[in-house]
Amino acid sequence: MNPRRVIGIDAGGTKLLGGVVDEALDVHHRVHRRILGLDQQELIDSFVDAVEEARSAAPDAEIVGIGIPALVRPASGSVLVSNHLPLDGVPFRDLMSERLGLPVHVDNDSNVAILAEHRAGVARGVDEAVMLTLGTGIGGGLLLNGEVYHGSEGAAAELGHILVDPDGPDCPGDCPNHGCVEAFASGTAIGRAGEEAARANPDSALGKALDAGREISGGLVTELAHDGDPLAREVLAAAGRMLGLAMVTLVNVFNPELVIVGGGASAAGDLMLDPAREVLAERALPPNRRLARVVQAHFGSEAGMIGASMLALDALTPLTQVGE
Amino acid sequence: MNPRRVIGIDAGGTKLLGGVVDEALDVHHRVHRRILGLDQQELIDSFVDAVEEARSAAPDAEIVGIGIPALVRPASGSVLVSNHLPLDGVPFRDLMSERLGLPVHVDNDSNVAILAEHRAGVARGVDEAVMLTLGTGIGGGLLLNGEVYHGSEGAAAELGHILVDPDGPDCPGDCPNHGCVEAFASGTAIGRAGEEAARANPDSALGKALDAGREISGGLVTELAHDGDPLAREVLAAAGRMLGLAMVTLVNVFNPELVIVGGGASAAGDLMLDPAREVLAERALPPNRRLARVVQAHFGSEAGMIGASMLALDALTPLTQVGE
Repeated sequence: MNPRRVIGIDAGGTKLLGGVVDEALDVHHRVHRRILGLDQQELIDSFVDAVEEARSAAPDAEIVGIGIPALVRPASGSVLVSNHLPLDGVPFRDLMSERLGLPVHVDNDSNVAILAEHRAGVARGVDEAVMLTLGTGIGGGLLLNGEVYHGSEGAAAELGHILVDPDGPDCPGDCPNHGCVEAFASGTAIGRAGEEAARANPDSALGKALDAGREISGGLVTELAHDGDPLAREVLAAAGRMLGLAMVTLVNVFNPELVIVGGGASAAGDLMLDPAREVLAERALPPNRRLARVVQAHFGSEAGMIGASMLALDALTPLTQVGE
Repeated sequence: MNPRRVIGIDAGGTKLLGGVVDEALDVHHRVHRRILGLDQQELIDSFVDAVEEARSAAPDAEIVGIGIPALVRPASGSVLVSNHLPLDGVPFRDLMSERLGLPVHVDNDSNVAILAEHRAGVARGVDEAVMLTLGTGIGGGLLLNGEVYHGSEGAAAELGHILVDPDGPDCPGDCPNHGCVEAFASGTAIGRAGEEAARANPDSALGKALDAGREISGGLVTELAHDGDPLAREVLAAAGRMLGLAMVTLVNVFNPELVIVGGGASAAGDLMLDPAREVLAERALPPNRRLARVVQAHFGSEAGMIGASMLALDALTPLTQVGE
């Protein structure tokens, strides 16, 4: 008998990644959509379309799990508010279920990412961990006493909105603050810092890329940094140091065993995490920093999709036992 | 039959407050000791002496609960580290129990304070709350899913060590950071800021107090502020705004229903909390700030002592039921 399969979808502020995932967590038939700038109707259509593309390859997959960058009420699957997608107040779970004619399970994208890491990734056997998901924004997940923590109405773990500099730049979206870590270390923020650095240093690899008309994104900064450009490396290191300041607060508050970094922008790896680790080693409380290790997500940028599929896998009817 | 009684002790960085507490949470026979600057032996003697003074008034009280400003391992009652008392590595629970010949229960002072507020104070019926205890330092307590959260080895909830300004002043004690909220809004920090303000403004009430040779403590700043001194009020407001920055991070991370402020320095009340509330209203994520209320601890500076006594009350043998 073939392993049973479900559909997992992870949406960020820019892209949607879906896949057919089986009980062994093997991923088949990945689907991608760009969702940046879509209005609500187009966005919903894009989710439906992605699920249907996945189903056409795997018609046996009849349950859908979705992670979205939004405050999701745990009981209803409704969106309280989303900083990056036009879903405020949308009864997302019920709407998707109606459009698809399938059961749908929904949670915050970072909550499902840490779920994936806890069950099958770097946080297996760990009870206390925090996760930062670096993408268009910065999402957060909390694993406390071995459970994903949702808070009283689903709006907890907004770890991208930890203050790291009271005089820092405006935070994007609906956040009224300035100086949140998201304003320094998201993929978007890295791209913006990279563009500024490129303008100031036209002879650098970054400067030449800008001159050649390329868009200076977080991804391009990371690519040029991996290729050895000192300027791109310094942009990542500066972002990493601000990320480290947020980790100081997190480690003092939660005393976690792990600080997990995932999301697309975590592709920078140690170029960003080593400077963060240095700040943590320098500034966090001694017992807390001795315990906490900063690690990349095992599932990398697929943690959200895998975790979303776990919501759906949990809803599969238990198999009849042999002998029953 | 008289209500049964226990002994509760709450130690901060400067003072120890004890009391005989009955099952109705009425407090009898308060005892006080000044413990600032004591070495380890003197400090332990002071705890023993305070308990014995309380017992001489209530010999029927045979269980002791103690809250201390330290990272306490939940299972053993041993101190991992204390920023404000010379107790690092001390097997405090067992040592006290041996010295007293009584069962002793120990937890972090802020953990017992939030326990008191949850069971019988402002957080009754609330599942998600954070508490900041303003004294010599700033302690923190977390109520998550209706339970006091300890973290993996008792070092969680160090909410005084939330970063609010990366370029701020050095944090006291063993904290290697600078710009933690404790460096701005503890009683100690308020006293220091008051002294600076007094020097710069010799004609103010604060300045005159300094000139008259009085020590400018957090308590004196609060007293003069309540009497109407504009300078003392501004010192408290400035501390309150920094406290508000820490609350922005807390409210974004935990989405709590309540932010409870207790400890001796919370006597400043709304003179400090209103500026904190303004910062929170201005800078926290909208859904989170709509939910969270900033309130003073019901038990004020006695929350720790009441909470410590609850540890002991929990250990009382259940009364035989009528009819058994």
